[in-house]
Amino acid sequence: MPGNSFGHTFRLTTWGESHGPGVGCTVDGCPAGLALDEAQIQHELDRRRVGQSKVSSQRQEPDRVQIMSGVFEGQTTGAPISMLVLNSDAKSSHYTAIKDLYRPGHADYSWDAKYGLRDWRGGGRSSARETIGRVAGGAIAKLLLAQVGVRIVGYTLQLGDLRATQIDEAEIERNIMRCPDPVVAEAMIARVDQARRDLDSLGGVVEIRARGVPPGLGEPVFDKLQADIGKAMFSIPAIKGVEIGEGFGVANLRGSQNNDPFIRREDGTIGTLSNHHGGILGGISTGEEIIVRLAAKPTPSIAQAQPTVDREGNPTSIEVHGRHDPTVLPRLVPVAEAMLALVLADHLLRQRAARVSYP
Amino acid sequence: MPGNSFGHTFRLTTWGESHGPGVGCTVDGCPAGLALDEAQIQHELDRRRVGQSKVSSQRQEPDRVQIMSGVFEGQTTGAPISMLVLNSDAKSSHYTAIKDLYRPGHADYSWDAKYGLRDWRGGGRSSARETIGRVAGGAIAKLLLAQVGVRIVGYTLQLGDLRATQIDEAEIERNIMRCPDPVVAEAMIARVDQARRDLDSLGGVVEIRARGVPPGLGEPVFDKLQADIGKAMFSIPAIKGVEIGEGFGVANLRGSQNNDPFIRREDGTIGTLSNHHGGILGGISTGEEIIVRLAAKPTPSIAQAQPTVDREGNPTSIEVHGRHDPTVLPRLVPVAEAMLALVLADHLLRQRAARVSYP
Amino acid sequence: MPGNSFGHTFRLTTWGESHGPGVGCTVDGCPAGLALDEAQIQHELDRRRVGQSKVSSQRQEPDRVQIMSGVFEGQTTGAPISMLVLNSDAKSSHYTAIKDLYRPGHADYSWDAKYGLRDWRGGGRSSARETIGRVAGGAIAKLLLAQVGVRIVGYTLQLGDLRATQIDEAEIERNIMRCPDPVVAEAMIARVDQARRDLDSLGGVVEIRARGVPPGLGEPVFDKLQADIGKAMFSIPAIKGVEIGEGFGVANLRGSQNNDPFIRREDGTIGTLSNHHGGILGGISTGEEIIVRLAAKPTPSIAQAQPTVDREGNPTSIEVHGRHDPTVLPRLVPVAEAMLALVLADHLLRQRAARVSYP
Amino acid sequence: MPGNSFGHTFRLTTWGESHGPGVGCTVDGCPAGLALDEAQIQHELDRRRVGQSKVSSQRQEPDRVQIMSGVFEGQTTGAPISMLVLNSDAKSSHYTAIKDLYRPGHADYSWDAKYGLRDWRGGGRSSARETIGRVAGGAIAKLLLAQVGVRIVGYTLQLGDLRATQIDEAEIERNIMRCPDPVVAEAMIARVDQARRDLDSLGGVVEIRARGVPPGLGEPVFDKLQADIGKAMFSIPAIKGVEIGEGFGVANLRGSQNNDPFIRREDGTIGTLSNHHGGILGGISTGEEIIVRLAAKPTPSIAQAQPTVDREGNPTSIEVHGRHDPTVLPRLVPVAEAMLALVLADHLLRQRAARVSYP
Repeated sequence: MPGNSFGHTFRLTTWGESHGPGVGCTVDGCPAGLALDEAQIQHELDRRRVGQSKVSSQRQEPDRVQIMSGVFEGQTTGAPISMLVLNSDAKSSHYTAIKDLYRPGHADYSWDAKYGLRDWRGGGRSSARETIGRVAGGAIAKLLLAQVGVRIVGYTLQLGDLRATQIDEAEIERNIMRCPDPVVAEAMIARVDQARRDLDSLGGVVEIRARGVPPGLGEPVFDKLQADIGKAMFSIPAIKGVEIGEGFGVANLRGSQNNDPFIRREDGTIGTLSNHHGGILGGISTGEEIIVRLAAKPTPSIAQAQPTVDREGNPTSIEVHGRHDPTVLPRLVPVAEAMLALVLADHLLRQRAARVSYP
Repeated sequence: MPGNSFGHTFRLTTWGESHGPGVGCTVDGCPAGLALDEAQIQHELDRRRVGQSKVSSQRQEPDRVQIMSGVFEGQTTGAPISMLVLNSDAKSSHYTAIKDLYRPGHADYSWDAKYGLRDWRGGGRSSARETIGRVAGGAIAKLLLAQVGVRIVGYTLQLGDLRATQIDEAEIERNIMRCPDPVVAEAMIARVDQARRDLDSLGGVVEIRARGVPPGLGEPVFDKLQADIGKAMFSIPAIKGVEIGEGFGVANLRGSQNNDPFIRREDGTIGTLSNHHGGILGGISTGEEIIVRLAAKPTPSIAQAQPTVDREGNPTSIEVHGRHDPTVLPRLVPVAEAMLALVLADHLLRQRAARVSYP
Repeated sequence: MPGNSFGHTFRLTTWGESHGPGVGCTVDGCPAGLALDEAQIQHELDRRRVGQSKVSSQRQEPDRVQIMSGVFEGQTTGAPISMLVLNSDAKSSHYTAIKDLYRPGHADYSWDAKYGLRDWRGGGRSSARETIGRVAGGAIAKLLLAQVGVRIVGYTLQLGDLRATQIDEAEIERNIMRCPDPVVAEAMIARVDQARRDLDSLGGVVEIRARGVPPGLGEPVFDKLQADIGKAMFSIPAIKGVEIGEGFGVANLRGSQNNDPFIRREDGTIGTLSNHHGGILGGISTGEEIIVRLAAKPTPSIAQAQPTVDREGNPTSIEVHGRHDPTVLPRLVPVAEAMLALVLADHLLRQRAARVSYP
Repeated sequence: MPGNSFGHTFRLTTWGESHGPGVGCTVDGCPAGLALDEAQIQHELDRRRVGQSKVSSQRQEPDRVQIMSGVFEGQTTGAPISMLVLNSDAKSSHYTAIKDLYRPGHADYSWDAKYGLRDWRGGGRSSARETIGRVAGGAIAKLLLAQVGVRIVGYTLQLGDLRATQIDEAEIERNIMRCPDPVVAEAMIARVDQARRDLDSLGGVVEIRARGVPPGLGEPVFDKLQADIGKAMFSIPAIKGVEIGEGFGVANLRGSQNNDPFIRREDGTIGTLSNHHGGILGGISTGEEIIVRLAAKPTPSIAQAQPTVDREGNPTSIEVHGRHDPTVLPRLVPVAEAMLALVLADHLLRQRAARVSYP
């Protein structure tokens, strides 16, 4: 089973290398009858695009999506939706000099160990450009989820020891860090600027929330909702930690503190008084907000000299020049949103097979 | 796609409820020619068994495994290996009284929301007894991995604010907390005892390591090794956070700190000087030790009164009696080891299809 | 991906060898809320059981099914349904003498070529006892299908040049050949008797029909309904040919003859005037009767001497004694019905994800 | 699980509609290190292209393939191989007039029943142009198979009652029917010409053979080699019957006739004296030639008037004009070869996981 597909019933397959002709994806399993146009997908791609600000890479590409199939007269048909984005600003020259060196923190060595060869131009398949297909597929997933009232929002929560102290969603897209706290956002931007001047990079934490998720999504045992979310998030480049709800904080809680009492809400439905559980119990959504945090490592491509070896193991030194983000956080936000949307869309459809009949 | 199977090429399917006739599993895809006997699987099951100590549930069951298929003259044949453990000490009476109440922190409500009905006896399918199948399947995975020199070890790292300050593997199985630091182990045991007397429970952190993993395991993009590990760990009941290598610590590091320089080892192979990356880069193993941490919430079943509602949403109060672990940590260790073994065995086999030919 | 599972959303996994402790299966993905008891499954198992008549093997086993999980208070819960049948009449002595010889028409050689070893007792995993799991799983599929009005019927259509000239379904279970034509049934029985006396065996054709299948089942392209039916039927031991509707007869028809005109039926629904297409067009059910035929080879186990080789390739001769069916046809009927039921149940559930919303 | 992918380890996903921007596919799981260029894929696409002769459709398209990813410096990298063919000669005007009528023998009605809407231009997703992706993917599978000495050949065996009486492979590509018997080929061409003049179409039988297949491919039970071949063949549009080896002929044979004696070949390997079994026993290849036959129905698009109904069920008459093949047989040959190649490539890779170690 090859590894370039995600999801069982709503299924995304991505392809493409950083410096090849283009990147793209196929969404298979999108139900028929969903209103869809390229502008909606383009909007999400524009959110992840590079060259947007001083905290991101300066690579300039329009990343124009073309829908190649699966849509007819503005609606999905049930056929696979193929999407294509041509590459236009690939500069392989940065990479020629270092093609035989193993960049620290990168996949060069492990890829060689697996395949015996690799496309070294711009990181090849391991480039972050691969996430274009995820964002395009996630855009369709978001549209499907919107039909049942699900809304996903993400933001930069933490950079180093700087952590947002308020979550004002209106602020998120107003600053280049996508931080929901405007004061902390300013401090984060200054911190990134300094790291760039130091030829260095920074890690941090992104938080994603999904509201309006109907209770009942997720499969018990191996395909628990948090298991598929965990897989989705850890499949994003640079992610080293994932939390649901209280996350690692549960290590410091007693059961009497961590348990969320069930209540009857004013509308008569059942919910919980608190939300330590982060919207999932026993692998199945409860209807409470789903809360996910993911830790992203500092971009491994830095322009300062680092010790390493070449393919034969000879010690040497490397400086990774090129157009790299000093922090991936703001561009990670739409990618992580897309992955959460893909998981929820998949389980929304899978849930339809859970009962012989529905009331 | 139902959710009771795990893995693509080495594939485990589990079944069974807490108070049904038994629990079990089928391992499909185990290669032919692996020496196997029931004692090896029984050894792992005994490690997860309940009633072992004052920090664990008092349910008494021998959990004797029977291999029903797939083994002939002491060797696997390539056919599916079915394993069966009969239930013997199920006491449903504890549950009759609360069958219409939603236990806080449990899957009762979300399961009802999904299926419209549930087997409430002992938690039914959402019981931790389901993990017997995982441990049995994982035992076979460990045997397969041992053929190529992989060894997996797990332990309790943290309980509340008590954290092991040394990792002495020889200590792990000597104390009932499975803590590698004998001094901290004593403190942990006292803490758990107190929680039990308080009719409460405690969360914590388990760490699992795999040594001798050959470089090249894992598929880039969606089936990254850490993605499948993340899914595996989040599929275990009670897990709310997962880290690889440096984990959430990367948020506080610069690239120049977090990057691990490549070196040539004395034996001529390539490795890294430090191991912030936790044995995986770009989704593929590097040959360095794989390090995983998982945060487990405090057992939700506590005997003190908690507010909740019944199936109709009427407010009420519940005390969850029965035989519950005040902390899941020591019994979580063999389960998490099993899940890591399942992921690695699966990718070990998948790796065989990565190249047209091998040198 | 191992090969002992079938179906995507309604998924059957079977296990077990002819002379091991037992055979069984797990059905994962059966929706919650289906009324189910063991008697219904036992009824189908009794239909496939051996020792029923002079045209079948004389092996005597009760084949009692035990449901081990997934059913609570008479209803499926959505959890996997594990079923177990213990082996009781295995006689391995017949096989000891020939364990190093390759039986013509059997899997001995190809299995050795694949795995390097095999469980030779009674054919091991390649025994027809494996189909017990299929029939048990198919019985549940039939119950699910019955909820939407689907009914499946199968029968022996042809044995050698003897072919049923009328299809009287009431006759099928009245004769040991399961032939719907009582006159031809008598001739078939005589023919089988003669083959047995000749220490030989006979092939033939079974036909399976499904009525009441709603239009819209099946996925275009690779998972066409006929593709999954084709796979299902060819997965049954001994099958060498499969036809849908007109089958190979289409080679002799013109388009104007083979096309089935669409009509409006009296109840206002759309159907076709004739049914050359066998209930499937473009891979999707039309609502007309689904018609499948499968050709079964003569049982390869015959007691007369046949030339062969041993594992080292040394020429020798073999007589396959034991308790073998001189024709598999009557016992093939319930197995083929089960496989068709599994395919239809799977696509019935998959169809629920085809549209954003249903009218 | 959506239905536009085929294969487990070597996996093809196709997309595209007849009159959309293009058609294409992604091959995921092709091992790294396979020499590949577009010319090799183009050669196979040229074999299936329309407008080749008077027995085929007159639609004129170059069908130029572009490899978009997965190949670097002439070798596969292990990354997904995306291939694109733009549509250039789509004439939707033929279809506007009949967009609300159900063409007999086509998927129009069943597609509407499934999805509630469809792309009616040129048959949309159910068009035979979808097979371009199969042939492109199959071309890569053939290259992989060639590494181990497997060679696949296909031809038109039968058209109506005309059946090739000799199999001269050198003749196949010399006549427009791809018939290996030059005399019968002439008669077939005359027969097709007559059908075209009669505004009618013809069915027939194609045979595909694979030589040099190593013994041991195929998984016992559900993923038997013949089961996956059966699925592959029945997934091709217009196929109503599939045979392996002796096929339906087994109905007329006794076991003593149908069993193929095992022998030691001159090179010391084990084989069979005859090949009734068609190269597969117990679902696993034996090393003998794999022989598959498939029956294709006459093209349903015929220009003579046929009774049908419209979407509301109103009776009417339809003439299907446009550029249609009076028989699909010669163009079916490369498609069926591609599907057989995909199955064998998939099982070639799956076989690598069958044993703990290989001698």
